[in-house]
Amino acid sequence: MCDWAALLLKSLDKTRDMPESRYFQLATVDEDGLPHNRTVVCRGFDEQQSVLWVVTDTRNKKIAELQASPHAAVCWYFAKTREQYRMAVRCRVDTPDTDESLCEQHWQRLSVAARQQFLWGEPGSERTAPKKSLIDHGANTDVLPDHFCVLTLLVESVDYLNLRGNPQQRQFFEKQQGQWHSKALIP
Amino acid sequence: MCDWAALLLKSLDKTRDMPESRYFQLATVDEDGLPHNRTVVCRGFDEQQSVLWVVTDTRNKKIAELQASPHAAVCWYFAKTREQYRMAVRCRVDTPDTDESLCEQHWQRLSVAARQQFLWGEPGSERTAPKKSLIDHGANTDVLPDHFCVLTLLVESVDYLNLRGNPQQRQFFEKQQGQWHSKALIP
Repeated sequence: MCDWAALLLKSLDKTRDMPESRYFQLATVDEDGLPHNRTVVCRGFDEQQSVLWVVTDTRNKKIAELQASPHAAVCWYFAKTREQYRMAVRCRVDTPDTDESLCEQHWQRLSVAARQQFLWGEPGSERTAPKKSLIDHGANTDVLPDHFCVLTLLVESVDYLNLRGNPQQRQFFEKQQGQWHSKALIP
Repeated sequence: MCDWAALLLKSLDKTRDMPESRYFQLATVDEDGLPHNRTVVCRGFDEQQSVLWVVTDTRNKKIAELQASPHAAVCWYFAKTREQYRMAVRCRVDTPDTDESLCEQHWQRLSVAARQQFLWGEPGSERTAPKKSLIDHGANTDVLPDHFCVLTLLVESVDYLNLRGNPQQRQFFEKQQGQWHSKALIP
């Protein structure tokens, strides 16, 4: 396991009881070269492979953005420990069509409430009856929908900042020829 | 005051005691079209002008990025109220050279510890003696440094999401011909 992954596991362990251990911000670039940024729930971290997982809906704009450019930027800030991980990542988008077993596995792990969100209609489209509930209690949440997808975020570099301690500590980790290298930076 | 600004003021008021009321994530795009994402401290919000302020160091990479493309994306998530504001913003960069009074005013508001961070050396350059303190206790923090700068983030659209309530609520606000318009979206 590389050094930054060990640091991240420690941050996750220290913040287990805090909401910030469950999500991070993911920035993408659209076809016009404009940035977009949103909070996403972390659905897993493989410290050996340097990979994070996120689930989403293929009808979401970020999927079109990632299909145009797979490069994305993660910012994960832990308020409790005052640590930040800024990651350059490459995203792979898998649908039930390209990797059914991966999608099925993530779908099965979701709560019924989380699955119902995939059945609300096309995300980002106008909601014509805002007062009306989007929840169809009769909908079958056992069946994996075609528009469910899994993002596999392959981490290529990590800019780690620890605001605790005086002075602050900043360390840059980068994968070069399959090996992780790191150096201390001025914050 | 427009509707999203009223919502944001309410979120800020409800989270006054929480760290998340003080910072958000800012995404930029570099000259190669790659996204970058980091946490920045909010140094003010003018709800009438739809403007946010951030202070930084001109030697930081985000300044070169913003000079190449002024379009940035703010993601401000409030864990306590489970609300998210995703803003498309246009950034203006002001240095003591272009707007001395704006820079001086923000410099004066910083704590001595925050000012000292501007005197640690070039941010992002290699720190050759990581064990050595970066703090020069004799440095004069009264004088505004040339590399201090103020980012003025002009908000152009806001995608607001409220995860509380069942179902969730999503509202998109956009400025068109000087007027704010909004519509409900499917989350």
